Amino acid sequence: MAKVGIVMGSDSDMPVMAKAAEILEKLGIEYEMTIISAHREPDVFYEYATSAESKGFKVIIAGAGKAAHLPGMCAAIFPMPVIGIPMKTSDLGGVDSLYSIVQMPSGIPVATVAINGGANAGILAAKILAASDPELLERVKDYSKELKQQVQEKDAKLQEIGYKAYMK
Amino acid sequence: MAKVGIVMGSDSDMPVMAKAAEILEKLGIEYEMTIISAHREPDVFYEYATSAESKGFKVIIAGAGKAAHLPGMCAAIFPMPVIGIPMKTSDLGGVDSLYSIVQMPSGIPVATVAINGGANAGILAAKILAASDPELLERVKDYSKELKQQVQEKDAKLQEIGYKAYMK
Amino acid sequence: MAKVGIVMGSDSDMPVMAKAAEILEKLGIEYEMTIISAHREPDVFYEYATSAESKGFKVIIAGAGKAAHLPGMCAAIFPMPVIGIPMKTSDLGGVDSLYSIVQMPSGIPVATVAINGGANAGILAAKILAASDPELLERVKDYSKELKQQVQEKDAKLQEIGYKAYMK
Amino acid sequence: MAKVGIVMGSDSDMPVMAKAAEILEKLGIEYEMTIISAHREPDVFYEYATSAESKGFKVIIAGAGKAAHLPGMCAAIFPMPVIGIPMKTSDLGGVDSLYSIVQMPSGIPVATVAINGGANAGILAAKILAASDPELLERVKDYSKELKQQVQEKDAKLQEIGYKAYMK
Amino acid sequence: MAKVGIVMGSDSDMPVMAKAAEILEKLGIEYEMTIISAHREPDVFYEYATSAESKGFKVIIAGAGKAAHLPGMCAAIFPMPVIGIPMKTSDLGGVDSLYSIVQMPSGIPVATVAINGGANAGILAAKILAASDPELLERVKDYSKELKQQVQEKDAKLQEIGYKAYMK
Amino acid sequence: MAKVGIVMGSDSDMPVMAKAAEILEKLGIEYEMTIISAHREPDVFYEYATSAESKGFKVIIAGAGKAAHLPGMCAAIFPMPVIGIPMKTSDLGGVDSLYSIVQMPSGIPVATVAINGGANAGILAAKILAASDPELLERVKDYSKELKQQVQEKDAKLQEIGYKAYMK
Amino acid sequence: MAKVGIVMGSDSDMPVMAKAAEILEKLGIEYEMTIISAHREPDVFYEYATSAESKGFKVIIAGAGKAAHLPGMCAAIFPMPVIGIPMKTSDLGGVDSLYSIVQMPSGIPVATVAINGGANAGILAAKILAASDPELLERVKDYSKELKQQVQEKDAKLQEIGYKAYMK
Amino acid sequence: MAKVGIVMGSDSDMPVMAKAAEILEKLGIEYEMTIISAHREPDVFYEYATSAESKGFKVIIAGAGKAAHLPGMCAAIFPMPVIGIPMKTSDLGGVDSLYSIVQMPSGIPVATVAINGGANAGILAAKILAASDPELLERVKDYSKELKQQVQEKDAKLQEIGYKAYMK
Repeated sequence: MAKVGIVMGSDSDMPVMAKAAEILEKLGIEYEMTIISAHREPDVFYEYATSAESKGFKVIIAGAGKAAHLPGMCAAIFPMPVIGIPMKTSDLGGVDSLYSIVQMPSGIPVATVAINGGANAGILAAKILAASDPELLERVKDYSKELKQQVQEKDAKLQEIGYKAYMK
Repeated sequence: MAKVGIVMGSDSDMPVMAKAAEILEKLGIEYEMTIISAHREPDVFYEYATSAESKGFKVIIAGAGKAAHLPGMCAAIFPMPVIGIPMKTSDLGGVDSLYSIVQMPSGIPVATVAINGGANAGILAAKILAASDPELLERVKDYSKELKQQVQEKDAKLQEIGYKAYMK
Repeated sequence: MAKVGIVMGSDSDMPVMAKAAEILEKLGIEYEMTIISAHREPDVFYEYATSAESKGFKVIIAGAGKAAHLPGMCAAIFPMPVIGIPMKTSDLGGVDSLYSIVQMPSGIPVATVAINGGANAGILAAKILAASDPELLERVKDYSKELKQQVQEKDAKLQEIGYKAYMK
Repeated sequence: MAKVGIVMGSDSDMPVMAKAAEILEKLGIEYEMTIISAHREPDVFYEYATSAESKGFKVIIAGAGKAAHLPGMCAAIFPMPVIGIPMKTSDLGGVDSLYSIVQMPSGIPVATVAINGGANAGILAAKILAASDPELLERVKDYSKELKQQVQEKDAKLQEIGYKAYMK
Repeated sequence: MAKVGIVMGSDSDMPVMAKAAEILEKLGIEYEMTIISAHREPDVFYEYATSAESKGFKVIIAGAGKAAHLPGMCAAIFPMPVIGIPMKTSDLGGVDSLYSIVQMPSGIPVATVAINGGANAGILAAKILAASDPELLERVKDYSKELKQQVQEKDAKLQEIGYKAYMK
Repeated sequence: MAKVGIVMGSDSDMPVMAKAAEILEKLGIEYEMTIISAHREPDVFYEYATSAESKGFKVIIAGAGKAAHLPGMCAAIFPMPVIGIPMKTSDLGGVDSLYSIVQMPSGIPVATVAINGGANAGILAAKILAASDPELLERVKDYSKELKQQVQEKDAKLQEIGYKAYMK
Repeated sequence: MAKVGIVMGSDSDMPVMAKAAEILEKLGIEYEMTIISAHREPDVFYEYATSAESKGFKVIIAGAGKAAHLPGMCAAIFPMPVIGIPMKTSDLGGVDSLYSIVQMPSGIPVATVAINGGANAGILAAKILAASDPELLERVKDYSKELKQQVQEKDAKLQEIGYKAYMK
Repeated sequence: MAKVGIVMGSDSDMPVMAKAAEILEKLGIEYEMTIISAHREPDVFYEYATSAESKGFKVIIAGAGKAAHLPGMCAAIFPMPVIGIPMKTSDLGGVDSLYSIVQMPSGIPVATVAINGGANAGILAAKILAASDPELLERVKDYSKELKQQVQEKDAKLQEIGYKAYMK
């Protein structure tokens, strides 16, 4: 049973949302990915958000751009954490999406990550589930070690060949 | 029967929304003012927006601040014009409200007015109704003449007494 | 007789303004498209704005970029709704156009849509006219259903083939 | 045993952080509040962050202003969710704090809430814990009902006395 | 005969515009100050701008706030220099006024000064007239010397009494 | 004898500054174009600015990007008008250049034009000189007529062939 | 002999610059404080900057607001480090000062500190001098320990009396 | 023994950091370049920063992007100057990096240079070391002379061939 719902308002957001899905797959977390527009099909959205708890979702990851209402509207209905991903926009760089997602009124938080932060949304969902799942917590820690190792390998290469060769 | 719905997400928005109501009263347009939070009572909101047409509303004026979803969610459901008023915010000056209201995705426009532009929302609603109501159009034009006269009186006073006396 | 005037300050705005025209055509609304610069030919502009009502216009859609005065100056003269489209700009992304259009002083509203929001300007014009035209209102609702259906088809495809295949 | 660590970089942040504490108290969640500056006492901070898991923390709420590093540095060390609260600043309104907290690099998410969003940080922490605690989930839902009821009471008052009396 | 027209869209701009007038008086330059709203009385404005040359104006100083169209519309009609003063606004600090004034399209420049820069607008007008008036140029230079002297006196005081006493 | 000095801090600004030169050539105004960095050769700059009046300059056009000090430092020394052109920057779009040029302290105005507004700087210089040169004023007016005619020709083409053909 | 020059463009900047002076006094570093406007007295400024090295200055701390040229012009002439303090401004919050100081072109760095960061400018000057002065380095470290101790005392108080009492 | 540590959080920052290295090489200053992520390997980072003084570093140059914590965390531990380079970011242009680096709290300054200002970071490090090294100071001055000469050569070429030929 999927524990994480991944929802986006438009299929143009999919490359960013896919990063969240990839992390969840890597960490062995089941998810369900859906395209639902809170603006173009409010009834479908409403049904999605109200039934999310009964489907077993513990976390929803919602991505949206511009006047990005999808994460906030999920948070208005779904009682567990909603993670919001502000999409980069071609005109304002995503600051519009960011403000529309993060500046939620008191009572209805959205856990906002960086602009286009798909991977971080996936990791945050995993950390939320890991708070009550010691095995998942170990996998999250292993993932962090991988990230550390990648940096160390890059530094080792730099020390070995110098920056001029590195940049080629 | 009210032709204009005025809706705000919080009673802290009322001083701005009252400006819209005052204009509508002045121009003889019936309205109904309501406090509804799309975030704190999404079911009440949904009911409000879906029944707005059958109540006879021709325009909705919606005001909201910060991650201001109320105008956009009204526009997702109500098939006639929705006017959005971005509230000034204490931290970002209202640019968060503005982006959350104006940057709507293709298909779901919100007719956005200036930050804290309550009066202008009322006038815009009147102009929308006046497009099919010649008598109202005359009253709108008379109101514009009043505005013009006010400026002319101020200038006449300036010409008479000079700027130093004027500023006292 | 054209009910909507579409006016732009420069032919470089045409790709955005064309989106508004396409929506109006689709919804069976007559319009007249014109290039008029309030800055380069203020007399031509003044004549255009003062004669717009007698030509039968019920709504004007005005697009402009940078220090975008065209929508506001139309609203200063034309007594019915003026819809403003802020053009994206290469240096400031369109935030200059947006502020110049939306931040109108009390008394002279411009119904502002998103940066480069040509289609939404067309839809907003249709919604304004639909407030007094039940047949048009039905066509507007049908258009909204089309938008909903498009999202549903995309989601169905996602559910069928998965995100990896979808993104190819 | 405290499940939530509340940490702030300066005691000037306390009025905002107190809002988070009040929510946790209301929902019956134990927490530990601390003042630790990642900049002024990096060794104390490092000890705090590395021992947080063994102390039983499941979530850390970190608030900071300006070049707000505290939440991100917590997230670099603590393996479970870190919630970041950007403080309003007197010069830039808090957009500096917001960017410093939300724009985290891939791999190290901070669950960012609104500028000065102390209450929302508390609610988000509760929602995270509620994902694996059905009783807490009920309390979270009850709290949401309270928020809804408050709005409904305000609207009832507005309907009863009208906006002019309401604003007095 | 007045050589400089000072025009503002609202009498709320007068404290800033008065600074321009004071400089012109100090430098012995005749001016005419007027309140004219390009938005509320476009016909009055149009008459003002088209007759400005025949009245003998060599420079127009125009101040406006928010969607500040007055300077740009003056520049569209008056063939000599127009100086624009962006007014500070309570929500966006004046960046809206600044963009609306400075970002003029090619062909129609407005000589923009700082937000609330009334005195600088007066000095710039004087410098423009001084380009063909050697006596005025001497007075402008004398004024610059005064400014220099004021700074030198402040520094002398600081050297004499130290910063602690100075700040009291 | 050159009446206008065109000065830029870097040859990367030349494409924008060339636009100013082209306008001056078209309007028959002599100018002198120079590359001088106020930062890299302050002594050369100082000599340039102090000798500008004796060389016969009546206006200086100065372009600069990022922390753009060149226009302001010219205005600190040269007693007649200085026109500043903020260069577009690759990271901040030119808002850094704009603020550095337009936000001058009281006493030292820079007549600022739009970001990358080379042509407008040339036209503004011409308008400044035209304030005391009736023949030049006629040429400036003719240029404005050309601009008007260009727009009218574009509109005529649009009316003739329609927007679909126009955009091809 | 003073090792640090503290220079400000206006005496309104003194409360911020005084913070730098206080730190230097505390750490036993001689300094000389001056008011010099690069804009209002460019010759005095030029003399100041060119003679700074021979006076024995090793570091200059320059504060300025709005189009803040003073730090950058010092850096153009003085061959050792220049520290820039952007002043908070009433309209733009100091982002104008910040961009004007930090965005220096390649070759002419200004070591920029936070908006209104007077104390930090003093500490940075001390750290620069401490790089070659082991005794001063010890005093800088002692100062850092003091800062650490202050935070620890605040946290001890919080642990003792709780946040409710603390905030009173 | 290396006197300058160059550290970056990601190898994607290397092209900018290389500019700093090239300047140091040109001026004969030894440095050590390292890739260390404060977020992905906080223990490695902590070890690096605490041992930097004993390795003989007098200055650290740290570059980072987005929520750029690396420079500030270095400054929290290393007692001598830390120079911060804000990286340009694809969505916000680097204003996020800039705020995260420059807006440090009182007590912990970071000497911030321009967005992507790698060369300037190198020059600033050299100027810091030159404050106590007369020979290095001469080399810094020679470098400044080179920069001056480059501008003069460009201007000479412009004077010789004119701007039209120059731009080809």
